Amino acid sequence: MSTQFRKGPSYFQYEPLVRIRGPIIQGQILETALLNIVNFQTLIATKAARICAATRGEPVLEFGLRRAQGVDGALAASRAAYIGGCAATSNLLAGRLFGMPVKGTHAHSWIMSFDDELEAFRAYAKAMPNNCVFLVDTYDTLEGVRKAVEGGKWLRSQGHEMVGIRLDSGDLAYLSIEARKILDEAGFTKALMVASNDLDEQTIVSLRDQGAAISVWGVGTRLVTACDQPAMGGVYKLTAVREPGRAWKYRIKLSEQAIKISNPGIQQVRRFQQDGQFIGDLIYDVDRGISEDFSIVDPLDTTRRKQIPRDAKADDLLAPVFRQGNQVYPSPSIHRMREHTQSQLAAFHAGIKRFLNPHEYPVALEPGLLELKTKLVMQARGMK
Amino acid sequence: MSTQFRKGPSYFQYEPLVRIRGPIIQGQILETALLNIVNFQTLIATKAARICAATRGEPVLEFGLRRAQGVDGALAASRAAYIGGCAATSNLLAGRLFGMPVKGTHAHSWIMSFDDELEAFRAYAKAMPNNCVFLVDTYDTLEGVRKAVEGGKWLRSQGHEMVGIRLDSGDLAYLSIEARKILDEAGFTKALMVASNDLDEQTIVSLRDQGAAISVWGVGTRLVTACDQPAMGGVYKLTAVREPGRAWKYRIKLSEQAIKISNPGIQQVRRFQQDGQFIGDLIYDVDRGISEDFSIVDPLDTTRRKQIPRDAKADDLLAPVFRQGNQVYPSPSIHRMREHTQSQLAAFHAGIKRFLNPHEYPVALEPGLLELKTKLVMQARGMK
Repeated sequence: MSTQFRKGPSYFQYEPLVRIRGPIIQGQILETALLNIVNFQTLIATKAARICAATRGEPVLEFGLRRAQGVDGALAASRAAYIGGCAATSNLLAGRLFGMPVKGTHAHSWIMSFDDELEAFRAYAKAMPNNCVFLVDTYDTLEGVRKAVEGGKWLRSQGHEMVGIRLDSGDLAYLSIEARKILDEAGFTKALMVASNDLDEQTIVSLRDQGAAISVWGVGTRLVTACDQPAMGGVYKLTAVREPGRAWKYRIKLSEQAIKISNPGIQQVRRFQQDGQFIGDLIYDVDRGISEDFSIVDPLDTTRRKQIPRDAKADDLLAPVFRQGNQVYPSPSIHRMREHTQSQLAAFHAGIKRFLNPHEYPVALEPGLLELKTKLVMQARGMK
Repeated sequence: MSTQFRKGPSYFQYEPLVRIRGPIIQGQILETALLNIVNFQTLIATKAARICAATRGEPVLEFGLRRAQGVDGALAASRAAYIGGCAATSNLLAGRLFGMPVKGTHAHSWIMSFDDELEAFRAYAKAMPNNCVFLVDTYDTLEGVRKAVEGGKWLRSQGHEMVGIRLDSGDLAYLSIEARKILDEAGFTKALMVASNDLDEQTIVSLRDQGAAISVWGVGTRLVTACDQPAMGGVYKLTAVREPGRAWKYRIKLSEQAIKISNPGIQQVRRFQQDGQFIGDLIYDVDRGISEDFSIVDPLDTTRRKQIPRDAKADDLLAPVFRQGNQVYPSPSIHRMREHTQSQLAAFHAGIKRFLNPHEYPVALEPGLLELKTKLVMQARGMK
């Protein structure tokens, strides 16, 4: 069985492939857990990667706990967001369980629990002298920035330096530019400007385009719900079956939509690269192998073909993780996974990663496997 | 502190109100957990209620586990969907933990693990003689229906009756009508037609409008992610603070957007009804009470007012659940909650519940509280 590698809607050009081989009952029991984990965490890691691409290297903090689905939904979101490129989470439990960095500021209620905003800032500065980000928009944002400057001056007089301020509402482009002036004029040129307020990759691109003076991006709701596409539609399909000691029988599920017809076989994915850049993926059957003279043919438009140079570097993407119930692939640290994601993303051409009209990365079935699939479809439809 | 009762975007006319009173640190620790639970489960219960409204009483099965956020995200979704009106879930663990009905069919892989579709149906019928719903779209849907009829005939010969068939892809309007004909002609007039495939309230309305012969609706992804609006934006605001033995000091958080300015006070919500129909809600301060001669005034357009008749029935919606750390409100059964939701929904005018251009249910601050809020806003803005 496998989760199916197919073209996805919207920003998923393709969904991931996972292969399971085992007794059918065991494979069946795994189905829903695997789909739940792979669908959601792939979705959030992808969304995080998009948001981090939009900030062009400026750190993104994941703030989504209050809008996620339950505790483990939120934890899974924090984990996936970090792997996808976020710098830290506001979820303390995720920090503790996964060893991720945690970051945050105080709440509006901190300010509101004092009679005076400046008094609240001073009390916060006293409590957190080395980690002090003032949330400035409880009453009037720019007035709040001026009070944060007072707080910062007091901190400096105590031998500490404020880390920055946070804007959480209003016109972030205008306010960040004005707040930056106030901070700079007061000598706080290194104070960070954290911004949050229903951000996603589109609003971030727009804010940067307007020259917003934001240096750290807090993203919550629209990240942990992947707001514009809140599910990745991964499925789990039987691709081959055999009785003990017999040969594999390859299977397909039909559909009126070509893209929803499942792929048969014992699948592996080979990724080709040249000059450090990924140039195409080929799904092949491990028993049949790859034909001598192959090219990557778009299954939805067979006139679109990609020749793979003979000297291209090739890596198989699937590696065994469990064998006979034993974990044979050691789980990498979350930091290693994050680095791996970054290095893999870097090897895709920028045109594939752009938000508007992205170029389509070439992925195809190995020609022999495609031929077999076509034969199985025709047979199942009662045609020769 | 309270989660804030305010106008919501899209299909939330208003977000719910919850009130917390206690030491500020304890109130603060509750914030994120409470928002996570209230935001997500309110979202899903609302989405479920919309979907169930679309089917006009025909049962809705929740099938969302594989597209939810983790195990407890999925469990919370199943629970909330049932409370919102769904008839059952496919999540066995939710059934076990919450005592909800569970329903489902076999997978496509069941069919694909056999050489022949009819053979698969017969084996399934043998295994589940009293609970047999055949999934008919693995290869060719209408051909699958004919084979399900064969399976049904075999079952009948054994003294059992098939429950129905399930369509999971393709043109559900066309296929359900054709499948119904095949079933009826074969004498299976009582066989249920379960349909699923990225359904939500809009597709259900459209399918019913096309005369689709569907009797049970399986809804997964778009229910458990509330696909068109995947977060409810509930927030948690400090509304009043006091030092021991002193009077309450009421608090507000300002915003450039009027609707985002928080409401001050120790709030309660009174709901008025007449002739069994809800006619308006009033948010009032429990210490100040309700002024003699009030009307419900739209805070965004003060010329819109709703007079509440003197003889209207009135209920306060907030009841204490915990007092001094002890639960004082016994948790109702999930079935009781579902019934309560249904009876509450029934008491709202149909115009409020329609999908297109719904009428807005009247909700307002008690006039004295509104006056106080206005004064606090002016003060905080440094105006008289």
